[in-house]
Amino acid sequence: MPSHPLLECINKRRSIRKYTEEPVEYADILMLIESGIMAPSGSNIQPWKFIVVDDPQILKMIISFSPGVNGNPPCLLVLCSDQELANKKGGKLGSEYLALMDICMAAENIMLAATDNGLGTCAVKSFESSIVQRILNLPEHIHPELMISIGHSSKDVAAPRRRPLEEVVFHNVWKA
Amino acid sequence: MPSHPLLECINKRRSIRKYTEEPVEYADILMLIESGIMAPSGSNIQPWKFIVVDDPQILKMIISFSPGVNGNPPCLLVLCSDQELANKKGGKLGSEYLALMDICMAAENIMLAATDNGLGTCAVKSFESSIVQRILNLPEHIHPELMISIGHSSKDVAAPRRRPLEEVVFHNVWKA
Repeated sequence: MPSHPLLECINKRRSIRKYTEEPVEYADILMLIESGIMAPSGSNIQPWKFIVVDDPQILKMIISFSPGVNGNPPCLLVLCSDQELANKKGGKLGSEYLALMDICMAAENIMLAATDNGLGTCAVKSFESSIVQRILNLPEHIHPELMISIGHSSKDVAAPRRRPLEEVVFHNVWKA
Repeated sequence: MPSHPLLECINKRRSIRKYTEEPVEYADILMLIESGIMAPSGSNIQPWKFIVVDDPQILKMIISFSPGVNGNPPCLLVLCSDQELANKKGGKLGSEYLALMDICMAAENIMLAATDNGLGTCAVKSFESSIVQRILNLPEHIHPELMISIGHSSKDVAAPRRRPLEEVVFHNVWKA
């Protein structure tokens, strides 16, 4: 018998694009990241860095270069790849793909843990990565790959529409 | 107060590299994929296809071109990007990055749901993608991006070592 809390959490997660003004605690964000780093990491390289941004000025600057961030979140988590580490241990494949893949799996854990804690999130891929890198004074080899906005949702959001399984699942053979 | 089942599941997940001969039910795999497709998808494009491989002959062929698959899993889930769909709706960025990111977030849901159901998994990135594509008769625009081996673990696996938070988390500013 599956336990239901996991599935409930997976099904309850929404992409939140409107936040209240209530701040989020830094300690709570750290808890979310603790869940994030339990995601699998290819060859256990863990080429991830997490920048928690809740300083209003920095937040404002980043948001102005991030068309994908909506609804004034009180916090942005910027998930970065450590290209030096990824390349050293995983070569070109490591720095071009594997680091990003690890980060995305960690991101999903973080968004689920946030949902579980009553926090809303939205994964954001649309931002000026090189400008964000400069705003945060990141070294050359630390690349912002994905952001997660985090805060308290200001309204209920309907479940996203999903293509039915019949359209996306195949059993041993492809059928056009 | 966070509910603990989610965190327990996140912390209990291991990368399994040795499986028993016990088969997995196709219906159970479908349940896992149902959790997978609840992951966020950029612009809700859902450029994912899931090929469930449990036919012993096909499995054997794929495994012989997949150095990352270990321990004779009774099932491989091949997560593919639909490059045509991703490109049509997300352009170059969509097909080169966003599809992969969606797939990885879905993969983490699938691995957590499997853990919750007593199944072991391992995310595998090391395989000959273009050969797997041909073995499965996939059209040109369907690219295998990631595999998940699925089965019953034949032994307990220790928790992976993780870099401490102090090493990977930064608060508003980068500190070398």
